[in-house]
Amino acid sequence: MPRHLAREMELLKKMILGLSAEVEEMLFKAAKAVAARDTTLAEQVIESDPTIDRHEVEVEEECLKILALHQPVAIDLRFIIAVLKINNDLERIADLAVNIASRAVSLASLPRVHTPLDYNTMADKVKGMLQLALQALVMLDAKIAWEVMRSDSEIDAIHREMFSSLGELIKKHPESSDAYIHYLSVSRNLERVADHTTNIAEDVIYMVEGEIVRHGKQS
Amino acid sequence: MPRHLAREMELLKKMILGLSAEVEEMLFKAAKAVAARDTTLAEQVIESDPTIDRHEVEVEEECLKILALHQPVAIDLRFIIAVLKINNDLERIADLAVNIASRAVSLASLPRVHTPLDYNTMADKVKGMLQLALQALVMLDAKIAWEVMRSDSEIDAIHREMFSSLGELIKKHPESSDAYIHYLSVSRNLERVADHTTNIAEDVIYMVEGEIVRHGKQS
Repeated sequence: MPRHLAREMELLKKMILGLSAEVEEMLFKAAKAVAARDTTLAEQVIESDPTIDRHEVEVEEECLKILALHQPVAIDLRFIIAVLKINNDLERIADLAVNIASRAVSLASLPRVHTPLDYNTMADKVKGMLQLALQALVMLDAKIAWEVMRSDSEIDAIHREMFSSLGELIKKHPESSDAYIHYLSVSRNLERVADHTTNIAEDVIYMVEGEIVRHGKQS
Repeated sequence: MPRHLAREMELLKKMILGLSAEVEEMLFKAAKAVAARDTTLAEQVIESDPTIDRHEVEVEEECLKILALHQPVAIDLRFIIAVLKINNDLERIADLAVNIASRAVSLASLPRVHTPLDYNTMADKVKGMLQLALQALVMLDAKIAWEVMRSDSEIDAIHREMFSSLGELIKKHPESSDAYIHYLSVSRNLERVADHTTNIAEDVIYMVEGEIVRHGKQS
């Protein structure tokens, strides 16, 4: 690889990992804000969104610059295409973290409701998936990425269960339906984070194995 | 442009427009299935999803092939990157159409509820946005794309209104909360279709004007 290209690729890797770390932090804070009814923490998440948006644009511009100037091929080309897509997924995860934080603000303004749901375990599992996907990216490790993909159906199952339990609770306690609807939204947003995390894992596998693994097609 | 590259670009354009037409049809049918309580139509939408997924993979593979074999630059490079992203958005719109179709199936199995909401107008507006975004893509017309972007906030406003009206209805008629929650989901899925349509419009603008317009940055 020409020296200039190698330097640009190194920079790109640092940029996408920096963005990942920021997004992971946002998700962690958003989930904590719901659990702790902490509106200050939630506001922090909401306020950090423009920074993420700016960093996403910077990563994309760096990718386009490398493509235009160095016309990379093979693994380098795959790496850049994967980063373009992962960049997009990270930005969307940040948006979902903002949605969760907004629900935390709304929930904190309503009387506390009893939910028998293990919402914290769901949040922890989704955060774990995201950490694992980023680890797969850093280590270019397809095996770890496959592990992430397998966790997705578990999160889907938890979300379906939440959906049905919250539906029952709304019927029993319609006076608290606003709060339950917010919890429903938190669960759905976490489920969507898991989907984007699965996309990231797929892109890592594509980068490492040079094959598009998607829509249930497994090696 | 070398003749081989020109031919590949023409093919790519046909592929992405073909995919667009399929996704537009899915969205049209899904919205109609909700309004008409038509489960047969809804099942058609759900069954067409694997075809869309396959076509998405084919478009992506074509993009990667062109990048690897022809190392295009300038507007050609921008076109391919835009197609890669639009491809992704179209596939997600198809997923949202499937979500809406699933809600249509669930709604058809529940007693009909009275909603004072103009859900049909919302669906029509979103379909109109998608058609306009695809027109912008075909004609490489940034002016049309800007028009799409302006419609997004209108859809957001309709969704917020739906959300609050449905919240009230659930409190008044908790026995029908399941149906109302499905309507809430239809509205949210339409709002997300509008978001992806906005992404497509942004990518057309980027392709035509060579500038990343995102996150509220307008010319």
